[in-house]
Amino acid sequence: FGTPQQEQYLVPLLRGEIRSAFLMTEPEVASSDPTNLQTKLTKHVGAHGRTKYVLNGRKWWSTGAMDPRCRFALVVARMEYADGATNTTTNKHGAHTIVLVPMPQPGVVFERALTLFGYDDAPNGHAEVSLKEVQLSKENLIAGEGSGFRVSQARLGPGRIHHCMRAIGMAARSLELMLERSMERQAFGKYLAEHGGCQEMIADSVADLESARCLTLNCAATMDVVKEPKLARNQVALIKYAVPDMTYRVVDRAIQLFGGAGVSDQDHCLARFLVGLRSLRIADGPDAVHKRTVAVSFLKKFHQSRL
Amino acid sequence: FGTPQQEQYLVPLLRGEIRSAFLMTEPEVASSDPTNLQTKLTKHVGAHGRTKYVLNGRKWWSTGAMDPRCRFALVVARMEYADGATNTTTNKHGAHTIVLVPMPQPGVVFERALTLFGYDDAPNGHAEVSLKEVQLSKENLIAGEGSGFRVSQARLGPGRIHHCMRAIGMAARSLELMLERSMERQAFGKYLAEHGGCQEMIADSVADLESARCLTLNCAATMDVVKEPKLARNQVALIKYAVPDMTYRVVDRAIQLFGGAGVSDQDHCLARFLVGLRSLRIADGPDAVHKRTVAVSFLKKFHQSRL
Amino acid sequence: FGTPQQEQYLVPLLRGEIRSAFLMTEPEVASSDPTNLQTKLTKHVGAHGRTKYVLNGRKWWSTGAMDPRCRFALVVARMEYADGATNTTTNKHGAHTIVLVPMPQPGVVFERALTLFGYDDAPNGHAEVSLKEVQLSKENLIAGEGSGFRVSQARLGPGRIHHCMRAIGMAARSLELMLERSMERQAFGKYLAEHGGCQEMIADSVADLESARCLTLNCAATMDVVKEPKLARNQVALIKYAVPDMTYRVVDRAIQLFGGAGVSDQDHCLARFLVGLRSLRIADGPDAVHKRTVAVSFLKKFHQSRL
Amino acid sequence: FGTPQQEQYLVPLLRGEIRSAFLMTEPEVASSDPTNLQTKLTKHVGAHGRTKYVLNGRKWWSTGAMDPRCRFALVVARMEYADGATNTTTNKHGAHTIVLVPMPQPGVVFERALTLFGYDDAPNGHAEVSLKEVQLSKENLIAGEGSGFRVSQARLGPGRIHHCMRAIGMAARSLELMLERSMERQAFGKYLAEHGGCQEMIADSVADLESARCLTLNCAATMDVVKEPKLARNQVALIKYAVPDMTYRVVDRAIQLFGGAGVSDQDHCLARFLVGLRSLRIADGPDAVHKRTVAVSFLKKFHQSRL
Ligand SMILES: Cc1cc2nc3c(=O)[nH]c(=O)nc-3n(C[C@H](O)[C@H](O)[C@H](O)COP(=O)(O)OP(=O)(O)OC[C@H]3O[C@@H](n4cnc5c(N)ncnc54)[C@H](O)[C@@H]3O)c2cc1C
Ligand SMILES: Cc1cc2nc3c(=O)[nH]c(=O)nc-3n(C[C@H](O)[C@H](O)[C@H](O)COP(=O)(O)OP(=O)(O)OC[C@H]3O[C@@H](n4cnc5c(N)ncnc54)[C@H](O)[C@@H]3O)c2cc1C
Ligand SMILES: Cc1cc2nc3c(=O)[nH]c(=O)nc-3n(C[C@H](O)[C@H](O)[C@H](O)COP(=O)(O)OP(=O)(O)OC[C@H]3O[C@@H](n4cnc5c(N)ncnc54)[C@H](O)[C@@H]3O)c2cc1C
Ligand SMILES: Cc1cc2nc3c(=O)[nH]c(=O)nc-3n(C[C@H](O)[C@H](O)[C@H](O)COP(=O)(O)OP(=O)(O)OC[C@H]3O[C@@H](n4cnc5c(N)ncnc54)[C@H](O)[C@@H]3O)c2cc1C
Repeated sequence: FGTPQQEQYLVPLLRGEIRSAFLMTEPEVASSDPTNLQTKLTKHVGAHGRTKYVLNGRKWWSTGAMDPRCRFALVVARMEYADGATNTTTNKHGAHTIVLVPMPQPGVVFERALTLFGYDDAPNGHAEVSLKEVQLSKENLIAGEGSGFRVSQARLGPGRIHHCMRAIGMAARSLELMLERSMERQAFGKYLAEHGGCQEMIADSVADLESARCLTLNCAATMDVVKEPKLARNQVALIKYAVPDMTYRVVDRAIQLFGGAGVSDQDHCLARFLVGLRSLRIADGPDAVHKRTVAVSFLKKFHQSRL
Repeated sequence: FGTPQQEQYLVPLLRGEIRSAFLMTEPEVASSDPTNLQTKLTKHVGAHGRTKYVLNGRKWWSTGAMDPRCRFALVVARMEYADGATNTTTNKHGAHTIVLVPMPQPGVVFERALTLFGYDDAPNGHAEVSLKEVQLSKENLIAGEGSGFRVSQARLGPGRIHHCMRAIGMAARSLELMLERSMERQAFGKYLAEHGGCQEMIADSVADLESARCLTLNCAATMDVVKEPKLARNQVALIKYAVPDMTYRVVDRAIQLFGGAGVSDQDHCLARFLVGLRSLRIADGPDAVHKRTVAVSFLKKFHQSRL
Repeated sequence: FGTPQQEQYLVPLLRGEIRSAFLMTEPEVASSDPTNLQTKLTKHVGAHGRTKYVLNGRKWWSTGAMDPRCRFALVVARMEYADGATNTTTNKHGAHTIVLVPMPQPGVVFERALTLFGYDDAPNGHAEVSLKEVQLSKENLIAGEGSGFRVSQARLGPGRIHHCMRAIGMAARSLELMLERSMERQAFGKYLAEHGGCQEMIADSVADLESARCLTLNCAATMDVVKEPKLARNQVALIKYAVPDMTYRVVDRAIQLFGGAGVSDQDHCLARFLVGLRSLRIADGPDAVHKRTVAVSFLKKFHQSRL
Repeated sequence: FGTPQQEQYLVPLLRGEIRSAFLMTEPEVASSDPTNLQTKLTKHVGAHGRTKYVLNGRKWWSTGAMDPRCRFALVVARMEYADGATNTTTNKHGAHTIVLVPMPQPGVVFERALTLFGYDDAPNGHAEVSLKEVQLSKENLIAGEGSGFRVSQARLGPGRIHHCMRAIGMAARSLELMLERSMERQAFGKYLAEHGGCQEMIADSVADLESARCLTLNCAATMDVVKEPKLARNQVALIKYAVPDMTYRVVDRAIQLFGGAGVSDQDHCLARFLVGLRSLRIADGPDAVHKRTVAVSFLKKFHQSRL
């Protein structure tokens, strides 16, 4: 969707030389419903007819924004019109716009680093950010006024698959650790691996892991085939709520099998994985929202199939 | 594995003209552990050096045995040697043999038709059968004395996939019924489809159904590719415990959504499906046994990968 | 609430000499929302100023209605006014009335006996009943026109506790059967009772059973103390959705432990219990409705505590 | 069980002026099976016939040991006999002894502070402790050589109830927070409290919380009545595995309802509660062990009731 000014970021971003952040969520409103968002992008028409845009609001859970390599942030904001500026676009589909804010930038203030269950995830942590009279120009708009939702949908899909793949990686590693531990440690006269209860934990974890893997591969395949992430949206929503749940259960069982060694993050990664997967049911939109998407789309499809 | 005498059954069986039954489970012993089986196949050496085999015992859950089209039963029995007969086979791997018993047959007595949660599943029901001095000859043995387990493993794999596919069919139909009902019925001022709780039931069912489908397709693909059902045994065991659980949850939710209409089997198939899927966690071997198989095989594989 | 004419039924009912039925649910509408109910009670003012009431509609799941000892049915119906009859009561709280219909009665026709998962529960089964021009008089009204909901609430509370107590009885019996079976049957070289997996099933069942018992006793105690079933309504709603779930899990585990013997209802009661408990999540109102009641009441209480 | 020298600690401990620590768990062995414990208490008979005891080993998860107010630790150790010392006690029931180690003490070295999911729980944290040639005398033994298990059982019961009560407190607070949040925050056009999905989360949490409360009160009552913690051991084991599970679910739902605000521990206590409750399924012995205790005791009781 970019403009030339925006495209200067693209190559270094893909090369991994710079980072970006995506600022949608706000502390004051239920942000899983994006119509709630309050951050304002006010359009002014200046003295010589030049338009400018001013950003005001507060965001949080801005992952990566505090990373020193972060060179720009995409901010979702509600359009306001002042000083005689009016909505001149033909875009009717939304009140929200995404703006690219180069970083660092005057008026963009990090209020605090958020902890995730006590972890600050530094350097790639989560910021609470206030936006105070941030001055921007037309070149900073992504795809024009009011295209916020369209753009963010296109962006979030692949990111979500990526999250699921990482979740599967965590679960796979946790299963391996379970197998290893259960063959090394003995209790009540036999290896953990020989206790029926442990075997059940392993077998249930295999089922969860395989299910998560199958669903995600399927989704990725659909995405590749259809070449339009939009069509695969349903499958993305499906894995978005199904995979965190399945992989969480695997890690949870691994922790239980490790006993005291499982709940500390000093010798093993399991505790760290667990909080990561727990927050995945919220990051990228809470389960409730994705379940709704899937249900509504199935209802629609079924309805149409009968007309 | 067949002999010519046995092969006469094959073509009509595949054509669907005749049926067969498989008699392994016994009421008196935990039959999920086949070493427990008590039915005896006694080998006698007769006057002129001719061997004969006599079958005695009691079986139950013999699906299809009472069907009038059932022309033969495969019976799993423990070898006994009498009248100077001894074990002359080189087969060392098992005490159990499978024999083909043509049906009807003197000595094979149907004691009762078993009900499944009140259903008798007639005509293709489940029999409790007593075997009293059933006279057989060498031609009736499948693959020789003591090959019982090898043969039954080969036979059960594809049957289990077939069961899973039927389970998926039931779940898919149940989801369709949920979609339909929720768009037709109103409660508390809106269609069921508009209640958040119902949407969640639908979304969870989509996830369960898709997972079941993916796992089963994967397993079938492995089976086709490897051309040796034995290698796919793990995946079969996995779907054996995973799929009944997933599909059961779908049907269970559909019943809940149907209210009173869901628990009666007169107007809808859901109640019928539910008891079918509940028994699938037992038929073909209970979950506990398949979970153990999967866990042990993963433990072994992991162990070998580290040597 | 009764009139003298109605009270003639009371003593023989309490003595168990006669039975009654309660007809609320209708096949055509979501009856968990009673405002949906369509059965009509039409008030007519006849030639000499005498009022009469005529009942028309269709009910189902009328438990006990077909029992030969059933002498009367309480029917919930929507008021209609014809022939100049108007609503002269001061009762504003509802459009529904409960009428006592002596049984058998002209116009009350049993359309069919409903099955519950294949069981007809005879003689105390569940009827689908059509009501065709059933003639009634003022004496048949319970507590006056429009008091339907008030009366049915008062009636349903104690009935629900009774259902929970029966559920607990089923679970307790199932646990006993599990204990017995697991000490008698061997698999894979040891008694089921010695397998870790079975011990876990038992321990989880003890927890479920004890929880169900505690909650129900608490609720019964509150009901006795407060002497007003209305106040205990919340606790009744709570056990209404919690107890069927907990007890169902116990029976479900028992079935699994019994293997093939668990899913047949011929030798053991478990299969029968399971379908009974499954339908309990629907009979007396589906979970969704009772959960809503509890949530809303907690929200209100919390809200008031902060004013 | 104390000696005069030990009793000097009692009054200040009860007054809260000093603290103690209990050192049982060891990193190298599955400590849920106490027969595995490796820390050695070696009895020596010195030159003048005076016995001394030397402690060697490594413990971890020693809660409170690093607290500056901690004045003594109770250490569970395996008896060894050296320099002609022999087991002269009549106590046959165990190889383990509990010794009181005054703190600080030469040879007791804190290796590191363990983190619980990234929290160090300072100042009352969890230590990994090495015990190197710690010199003790007969006065330090609690209840004599070999009484380790008897004493630790007596000690752990009340501590476990206390843990459950704290868990219930956390769940109760989480439910309150859910109620509050759901009445303040709006998404998709209505308060969270009005979404069916949220109501269900609240209702399920009420059921979990009430069940946990009932079970724990019951257990405490039994303990008070029987005056012998030993008899209540079963009920303690029951709540030990049931209550962490129930209360965890409540906190987990509260986190989900809070979205991003739920997974950070900066503004709300929920994230902190969750990891606390997760570790409760391991601290004080893992679920598997307590489930086994309950199952075995029920099996025994049932067996005896039938003799
Ligand atoms: C680790 C992490 C990283 C993140 N990274 C980013 C980032 O880089 N950029 C960014 O912008 N945001 C980020 N987020 C924020 C995340 O996207 C939001 O937290 C999420 O979208 C939910 O918004 P909320 O917190 O405002 O929750 P809310 O919108 O308040 O929702 C909370 C809860 O309300 C209930 N609810 C909401 N709608 C419904 C409904 N229709 N029906 C029933 N219940 C409902 C659900 O229980 C839901 O869980 C991150 C979050 C985390 C935890
Ligand atoms: C609808 C239906 C159709 C069937 N059709 C046939 C058929 O055509 N032919 C045929 O031969 N059989 C058939 N069966 C029988 C079925 O195969 C057996 O019921 C099944 O194998 C279990 O055997 P069992 O009933 O003896 O259970 P058991 O062996 O007694 O097992 C019962 C329970 O014991 C526990 N258990 C057992 N082993 C372990 C372990 N290692 N660890 C922990 N717990 C354990 C589990 O909880 C298990 O569920 C059918 C059954 C049904 C329900
Ligand atoms: C064994 C048995 C005995 C019975 N005995 C009697 C009797 O003696 N007399 C009598 O009158 N009735 C009786 N009933 C009927 C019973 O009371 C009704 O079935 C029950 O009240 C539900 O009504 P419904 O079947 O119309 O379901 P519906 O009202 O159609 O509800 C079906 C489903 O819709 C969904 N739903 C409804 N409302 C909501 C909501 N607000 N939010 C989210 N989801 C919602 C739920 O999933 C619910 O389970 C009996 C039923 C059974 C099974
Ligand atoms: C917050 C916290 C505070 C603690 N405070 C103290 C303290 O003050 N003092 C102290 O001494 N200890 C303390 N502990 C340690 C705790 O008591 C132990 O972690 C616990 O007893 C388990 O021992 P383990 O870690 O060695 O696990 P293991 O014994 O290795 O057990 C791990 C797992 O093995 C499996 N397992 C074991 N036995 C069986 C079986 N029979 N059947 C099936 N599966 C089985 C289970 O899955 C189990 O969860 C604390 C722990 C925590 C987390």
